[in-house]
Amino acid sequence: MYKERVRNAALWDRVSSAEDAAKLIKDGMTVGMSGFTRAGEAKAVPMALAERARTDPLKITLITGASLGNDLDKTLAEAHVLSRRMPFQVDPALRRAINNGEVMFVDQHLSETVELLRTRQIGPVDVAVIEAVAITEQGGIVPTTSVGNSASFAILAEKVIVEINLSQSDQLEGIHDIYIPSHRPMRTPIPVVTPESRVGLPFIPIDPDKIAAIVITEKLDSSSTVLPPDDETRGIAGHLCDFLQNEVKRGRLTNSLQPLQAGIGTIANAVMHGLLDTPFHNLKMYSEVLQDSTFDLFDAGKLDFASGSSITLSKEKYDDVFPRLSDYKSRLILRPQEVSNHPEVVRRLGIIGINTALEFDLYGNVNSTHVGGTHMMNGIGGSGDFARNGYMSIFVTKSTAKGGLVSSVVPMVSHVDHNEHDVDILVTECGLADLRGLAPRERAELVIAHCVHPTFRDQLRDYYQRALARGGHTPHVMEEAFAWHTRLAQTGSMLED
Amino acid sequence: MYKERVRNAALWDRVSSAEDAAKLIKDGMTVGMSGFTRAGEAKAVPMALAERARTDPLKITLITGASLGNDLDKTLAEAHVLSRRMPFQVDPALRRAINNGEVMFVDQHLSETVELLRTRQIGPVDVAVIEAVAITEQGGIVPTTSVGNSASFAILAEKVIVEINLSQSDQLEGIHDIYIPSHRPMRTPIPVVTPESRVGLPFIPIDPDKIAAIVITEKLDSSSTVLPPDDETRGIAGHLCDFLQNEVKRGRLTNSLQPLQAGIGTIANAVMHGLLDTPFHNLKMYSEVLQDSTFDLFDAGKLDFASGSSITLSKEKYDDVFPRLSDYKSRLILRPQEVSNHPEVVRRLGIIGINTALEFDLYGNVNSTHVGGTHMMNGIGGSGDFARNGYMSIFVTKSTAKGGLVSSVVPMVSHVDHNEHDVDILVTECGLADLRGLAPRERAELVIAHCVHPTFRDQLRDYYQRALARGGHTPHVMEEAFAWHTRLAQTGSMLED
Ligand SMILES: CC(C)(COP(=O)(O)OP(=O)(O)OC[C@H]1O[C@@H](n2cnc3c(N)ncnc32)[C@H](O)[C@@H]1OP(=O)(O)O)[C@@H](O)C(=O)NCCC(=O)NCCS
Ligand SMILES: CC(C)(COP(=O)(O)OP(=O)(O)OC[C@H]1O[C@@H](n2cnc3c(N)ncnc32)[C@H](O)[C@@H]1OP(=O)(O)O)[C@@H](O)C(=O)NCCC(=O)NCCS
Repeated sequence: MYKERVRNAALWDRVSSAEDAAKLIKDGMTVGMSGFTRAGEAKAVPMALAERARTDPLKITLITGASLGNDLDKTLAEAHVLSRRMPFQVDPALRRAINNGEVMFVDQHLSETVELLRTRQIGPVDVAVIEAVAITEQGGIVPTTSVGNSASFAILAEKVIVEINLSQSDQLEGIHDIYIPSHRPMRTPIPVVTPESRVGLPFIPIDPDKIAAIVITEKLDSSSTVLPPDDETRGIAGHLCDFLQNEVKRGRLTNSLQPLQAGIGTIANAVMHGLLDTPFHNLKMYSEVLQDSTFDLFDAGKLDFASGSSITLSKEKYDDVFPRLSDYKSRLILRPQEVSNHPEVVRRLGIIGINTALEFDLYGNVNSTHVGGTHMMNGIGGSGDFARNGYMSIFVTKSTAKGGLVSSVVPMVSHVDHNEHDVDILVTECGLADLRGLAPRERAELVIAHCVHPTFRDQLRDYYQRALARGGHTPHVMEEAFAWHTRLAQTGSMLED
Repeated sequence: MYKERVRNAALWDRVSSAEDAAKLIKDGMTVGMSGFTRAGEAKAVPMALAERARTDPLKITLITGASLGNDLDKTLAEAHVLSRRMPFQVDPALRRAINNGEVMFVDQHLSETVELLRTRQIGPVDVAVIEAVAITEQGGIVPTTSVGNSASFAILAEKVIVEINLSQSDQLEGIHDIYIPSHRPMRTPIPVVTPESRVGLPFIPIDPDKIAAIVITEKLDSSSTVLPPDDETRGIAGHLCDFLQNEVKRGRLTNSLQPLQAGIGTIANAVMHGLLDTPFHNLKMYSEVLQDSTFDLFDAGKLDFASGSSITLSKEKYDDVFPRLSDYKSRLILRPQEVSNHPEVVRRLGIIGINTALEFDLYGNVNSTHVGGTHMMNGIGGSGDFARNGYMSIFVTKSTAKGGLVSSVVPMVSHVDHNEHDVDILVTECGLADLRGLAPRERAELVIAHCVHPTFRDQLRDYYQRALARGGHTPHVMEEAFAWHTRLAQTGSMLED
C-alpha cells in the first residue's frame, strides 16, 4: 500500500522501522519535527526515541512548528529526552519540566524560528522528521494536516526521515502551498496578495538523496481539546460582533471585514462561531490553525476562503469533514507558518487578529503566557506576529478565572507579551474597550467601565485613583502593582477582604 | 525669491502670512505637521498658532512624524494648545504636560500612525502643515530634511498649508522617494528590495487645489543635541563591534554586515561612530534618522548608501555637509517613515537594529520609555518596528544612570516596550550578552555575568538566586520585583545598604 504513496521507487529501499530510523538521531543533536497545533506531527520516530532513551539515555534539542498531539511532548519530557525545546508547546508534563528548569524552553514568535535557522543564528538542524501523505516522483514531500516549519526543516537538515501516514487522507495532496523566502540580500517580495494566493509548490522540494529513512505509520492526529461555547464565551463573541457591525456602520469596514486570524483555544473558537449569527458574508481567514469554527462558517456559507498552517478538529468534526475534504479543497490552503504569520503578508492583507489573553491590565498590556508572572503556560505562539503587524489587534479573555477568585483584568500584568502599542480592542464577557487612539489614562477608564468583572471593579478603580494621585503618563503605585498576584499566591484569591 | 521655489505660478496668490494661514486651524481640529527627529518641521504656522492661543484659546490634536525642533513642542505645550499629541516627542515641557495628564499622548510605533489614519481608525486630519523646499510645476510638494508622515498627511488632509523654507538647501530636491502603499484589499508588495531602491516620486503628489496657503520662512532646523562619544559609549561600541566581527568570523555575516538601523540619541550615534575603527566595509544603512555618524562613515569610505526618513546633524556637521550636499546625494534617500520602518521591508532586508534602552532586566525585557515605570520620557518611536521584524535586535545602554545610583539592569523592568522575544543582544559598557536561542534562566546568567555594573552585581545575583528557589520558566520574587525602583523613589538610590 505504501508504494502508491512513495511514488519515487528509488526510495522504497529506505523504508525502515521507527526504531531503526530513530537511530539516526544521536545524543546532543538538534531535531526539527513536523507538527503544528496537534496536527501532522511525526508520530512513530519520536515514540521510538523515547522508548530507546529508557535504556540508552540521550538529550536533544527539539524544534517543531508548534504544539504536538498524541502526548508526544509528554512522552518525550517524561523520558527526559528534551534538553531544549522551541518554539511552542501545550503539554502539562512538559510544562512542569520547563517550569522546574529541566527543559530549556525558547518561546518564539512563530514566524521567526526558521528565519533564525536559515541565518544560522540558531541550529543547525541535524535531522528532520516529517509526516507526509506522499513522496512525489521527484522526491518532493507532501505534508499532512499541518505545514508548520516542516519545509524549512527538511530543506535545512542534513538528513530527513519521512513518516508516511497511511491514515492521513490522500486528498490532502494539493492543499499545501510551499513558498520559502529566498536568502538575503537577494530576497524579493512574497507574492501573497490575498488569502487565496498560491505562490509555491504543493510539496516540499528536497534532494531525495537526503531522505535517509521512510517509516510507515497509521496513527491519527489527536482531536482538538477545544470546549464548546458557553455563556461567557458567547458573551465575548456577542460584544465583538456588535463592535464589528458598528465599524461597518461607520464605514470603516465592509460586511466582509478584513481577513481574520483567530488564536488557539476555546475562546477564540467560540468567537469565530459567533460570526455565524451576524450579517457578515464573504469572509476570509488568513490564520494559523483552522478549527471547527472554520468549517462551520464554510457550511453556513459565511466564509469564502481559509488559509492556515494546520487543521485541528474535534473528533465529530473530523469525521464529518475529512471524508468529504475534496468539497472544501478549492477553498483551503495550508502554508508554512513563516508565510501564514509573516509580518510582510500580515500587514499587506490587513489582518484582524483575535487572540486570547491570560490577563490584561488597566492600560491594555497583555499577558498570554506566564501564570503569576513566572510559570509558563504554552508560549506566545503567533499572537505577536499578528498583534504587532495587522490591521487591528483584538484580545479576548473571560474576566475571571478559577471560579471567580482570579481577575483576568489586573492593575499591572505580571508578564508582558503584548504591550499597549499592540493592543487595540479588549473584550471580556462584561464588555468591550476600544482603545484605539487613546492615551493610557483614557484606556484605564474604559477598561474599568467595560472589561473588569463587577466583583473586582471597585478594587481596580481604587488602585487607579491612588495611582493617578502620583501622576505620570501611565500611573501606577509601583510597590502595589503586583499586590493582587501576591495575595492570590498567599490566600488563593485576588479579592481584598 | 520664493517664485523660483513655487514653480506653479497659479499658486502665487496663496502666499500669506503665518498668522493668516494659522487661521485655517480651528479649535478641536486634528492637524498633521511635518517634522521628524527635529528635522524639517513646519516652523512658522505652529508658532503663530501658539501666539494666537494667548488671546484666543484653542486646543488641537497634533500628529507629526516624530519629534519637533525649534522648541515647538515646548511653545505649543506652554500655550496649552495641545489636547492630544502623537506619535513621539522629546521635549521636557511637553513631557511635563503629558506626565501631569494635561496632554493625552498616544505613543505609537512610527510605522503605524498613517496606517491608522488611512483606515480611519484615528483622525481624520483636517489640516496638514508641511515644510517644503519647493512646489513643482504640477503642485507636488518637495519636503526638506525629513519626510516623516508628511506625504500621507498632505494626501489625507482636507487642506494643506505649505511652508516654503528658503534656508533649506534646494539641493534636497531629488533626495526624497515618496511611495505610499495602496488601499487594501488591492495592496501590492512594496518594491523596496535594497536600501537604494527608488520606488516612488521625488515629491508628494497632491491636487494643488488643496493647497490653501503658502507661508515663506527662513528659520533653520535645530541642531542635534547628541553628545560626543565618551568612555562608556566607546566601551559599548567596542563590545558590539567585537561581537559583530566574531559573527563574521563564524561565517554568519560578511564584512558588509546587514543594513543597519540606529536609534536616536547619544549612545546610538556613538555606536555608529565605533564602526569607523573596524574592518567592516561597503556598509549600508536603512534607518530612520541619519545623524553625524552617517556622514563620518561616508567620509571614511565605510558606508555605501544610507536610507532614512530625516537628517539631523550637529551645528558643525551641518555646516560641513549641507554646502556640499550634492556630493552625497547619489548615496542618500529620504523616505516616508511608513516605508523606512515598514515591517515588510525591515524583514525582507534583514535589518540589524540598534536601539537604546532606559533599562533592561534579567531576562532581556527592555524599557525604552517610562522612567520609574510611570513617567514618559520620549516614546517608543520606531524601535519596535525594527526590534520585532529585523534580522537582529540589539539594545544598548550605559549600565548605570544618575551618577551610578540607578542601575539600568534591574530584576524586572518597570515597563515593557520590547519583550524577551524581540531582544537578541544586550550591551552595556561592562560587556555584551548574546541571548539568541536561550531560555530565560540562561539569559539571566549572561546578563549578570556581562551587563550589570559591578556595584549592582551581587544584589542582582541575590535576587535571581531567591527567584530561582521559587521556580518557574521566568523566575521572579513578585513582591520584590520593583523593590529597586521603590528604593530609588524613597532614598534616591537603587543600592541596598
Ligand atoms: C491564553 C491561553 C492559554 C488561553 O487558552 P483558552 O483555552 O482559550 O482559555 P481558558 O480560559 O480555557 O484558559 C486556559 C487555562 O488558563 C487558566 N487561566 C485563564 N486566565 C488565567 C489567569 N488570569 N490567571 C491564571 N490562570 C488563568 C484557566 O483557568 C485555564 O486553566 P486550566 O487549564 O487549569 O483550566 C491560550 O490562548 C494561549 O496559549 N495563548 C498564547 C498563544 C497564542 O495566542 N497563540 C495564538 C496563535 S498560535
Ligand atoms: C532611551 C533614550 C531616552 C536614551 O537616550 P540617550 O540620549 O541615548 O541616552 P542617555 O543615556 O543620555 O539618557 C537620556 C536620559 O535618560 C536618563 N536615564 C538613562 N537610564 C535611565 C534609567 N535606567 N532610569 C532613569 N533614567 C535613566 C539619563 O540619565 C538621561 O537623563 P537626563 O536627560 O536627565 O540626563 C532614547 O534612546 C529613546 O527615547 N529611545 C526610545 C525611542 C527609540 O528607541 N527610538 C529609536 C528609533 S526612533
